[in-house]
Amino acid sequence: MQNDLIRRLLEQDIRAIAYSISIVENSSQSSSQLLKQIYANVGNAYRIGITGPPGAGKSTIVNQIAKLIRKKNKRVGIIAVDPTSPFTGGALLGDRIRMSEIGSDTDIFIRSMASRGSLGGLSKKVIDAADVLDAAGYDYILLETVGVGQSELDIVKAADTTVVVLVPESGDSIQAMKAGLMEIGDIFIINKSDRPGADQAAASLKSILMMRPHDEKIWLPGIVKTVATETKGIAEVFSEISKHREFLSNTNLLLKKREKQTKNRIKEIVEEYISKELWNAERESSLDSSLGKAVLGKLSPYQIAEELIENFKKDI
Amino acid sequence: MQNDLIRRLLEQDIRAIAYSISIVENSSQSSSQLLKQIYANVGNAYRIGITGPPGAGKSTIVNQIAKLIRKKNKRVGIIAVDPTSPFTGGALLGDRIRMSEIGSDTDIFIRSMASRGSLGGLSKKVIDAADVLDAAGYDYILLETVGVGQSELDIVKAADTTVVVLVPESGDSIQAMKAGLMEIGDIFIINKSDRPGADQAAASLKSILMMRPHDEKIWLPGIVKTVATETKGIAEVFSEISKHREFLSNTNLLLKKREKQTKNRIKEIVEEYISKELWNAERESSLDSSLGKAVLGKLSPYQIAEELIENFKKDI
Repeated sequence: MQNDLIRRLLEQDIRAIAYSISIVENSSQSSSQLLKQIYANVGNAYRIGITGPPGAGKSTIVNQIAKLIRKKNKRVGIIAVDPTSPFTGGALLGDRIRMSEIGSDTDIFIRSMASRGSLGGLSKKVIDAADVLDAAGYDYILLETVGVGQSELDIVKAADTTVVVLVPESGDSIQAMKAGLMEIGDIFIINKSDRPGADQAAASLKSILMMRPHDEKIWLPGIVKTVATETKGIAEVFSEISKHREFLSNTNLLLKKREKQTKNRIKEIVEEYISKELWNAERESSLDSSLGKAVLGKLSPYQIAEELIENFKKDI
Repeated sequence: MQNDLIRRLLEQDIRAIAYSISIVENSSQSSSQLLKQIYANVGNAYRIGITGPPGAGKSTIVNQIAKLIRKKNKRVGIIAVDPTSPFTGGALLGDRIRMSEIGSDTDIFIRSMASRGSLGGLSKKVIDAADVLDAAGYDYILLETVGVGQSELDIVKAADTTVVVLVPESGDSIQAMKAGLMEIGDIFIINKSDRPGADQAAASLKSILMMRPHDEKIWLPGIVKTVATETKGIAEVFSEISKHREFLSNTNLLLKKREKQTKNRIKEIVEEYISKELWNAERESSLDSSLGKAVLGKLSPYQIAEELIENFKKDI
């Protein structure tokens, strides 16, 4: 069954891909089994993270880039992290809208993942899902997230090239800086650049970026003005992505970047496992029942912590 | 030696207090010993968190509140988390400026803690330091942090009452919302309210807060306009704090709040310990040496993770 699934996944069967991502989303035991088995086939896809504030036009840009990639006869997978609540079913809705826009091209695979209440483990699941698409032979994987929150930033950090989408409105780039987007962008897009202030926004962005160290071994991010709804500037965006890819490969930085990403990922897998073992129902309730004494000063938090640690050591 | 330190700490000896906080800052074995021994004396101080964007005037407000508390013949401890880099020595400088402002009153104790490079463990150390001041008999503890970043928010969440300081400039409250300050504030201050727009800022803030559920069991945050440099509004701030304290105590929410905070704290202590054991030098370097194989697709991150987990289980 599992072997049959993997065979079909490697044969690029759409239903096997969708089912595999569902396994990965549920993050069960069979998820890590699956990921171990496909891993030899992972590593060929180029991963592009696309982020920015809400309303900047990320989805439109992602769709346009995907269409461009298809014109080059390459296959493209899209994972869009949808920050909707679990109640609205936003992720499903998103799938439909996107699908109808791009059409029924089978060499484009699109999946929305909702960030649901707790963000814990989201970036892990997205990266796992990207591995599934990678093994299924997609040449490019686009990871789209709203640029707010640590977990979203973790996702784009897992990309080879990170694209930050902004709009001309003043203050937007300052927001981006505050949100930590300035540090992670390899390419910046000023979208909706038919609006007033686009040139000025690009210029002030450039002056900020020029303050970063840059030389032949440190990439200086490119800035591209787009009107995504009219496909304006999309070819330039893709050309910047290709330039960045070439830069990473020429400087051997792609390998280094992926090593660092893999390190973070392994640590996250280990820590999630340990945390689950640590905070099992028994220790959770033992902790809860000691809180009253702690608040009344009868037991120190450190003493309670030590007892929990001792119990964990015996248990694991 | 340790017992002598604790005796002097409980006798409110300033040098013993300062030395104890240093022990706690270094977070060594003796730190948890110390905290366990003083814990029976902890729990009487009322903890007030003060946060807001940079430049809102938090330090001035903290100093003014401290002076007011002293006029009521109560003792006050201040922990100011200084977001300066380790290179500027900002925390030390901060101590001096503050000291000279408030004078040489020995019933005010002030300590700046720099948030230095990594923020890991900062909130834990600040809460530990607050326990030291609590045991040393300070009636009020003021925890001042810049409202950016998770660790800073964790600190104010450890307070009984959280005060958010804003200024009238438009957009400021929207920033506060984005940064998660809106959810944590029990009291909001519009400081520098002699500037234009103060009334409007207060009104729009109020309309946002009114959208939160509130009844006799859910606190509706108060809004106070201040000009801290002229001591205007400070008495009102303190009166709001007292009202909130009374509310928490009447509804039994203070105990519940402290239980929740203690739970988070114990979890953090346990997790920090486990994480140190987990990522010891040996496993760190074993992880590093496997990254090359992982990136080349020869070893799955899940396989490497499992080996690290097995090794940890045998080891602990």
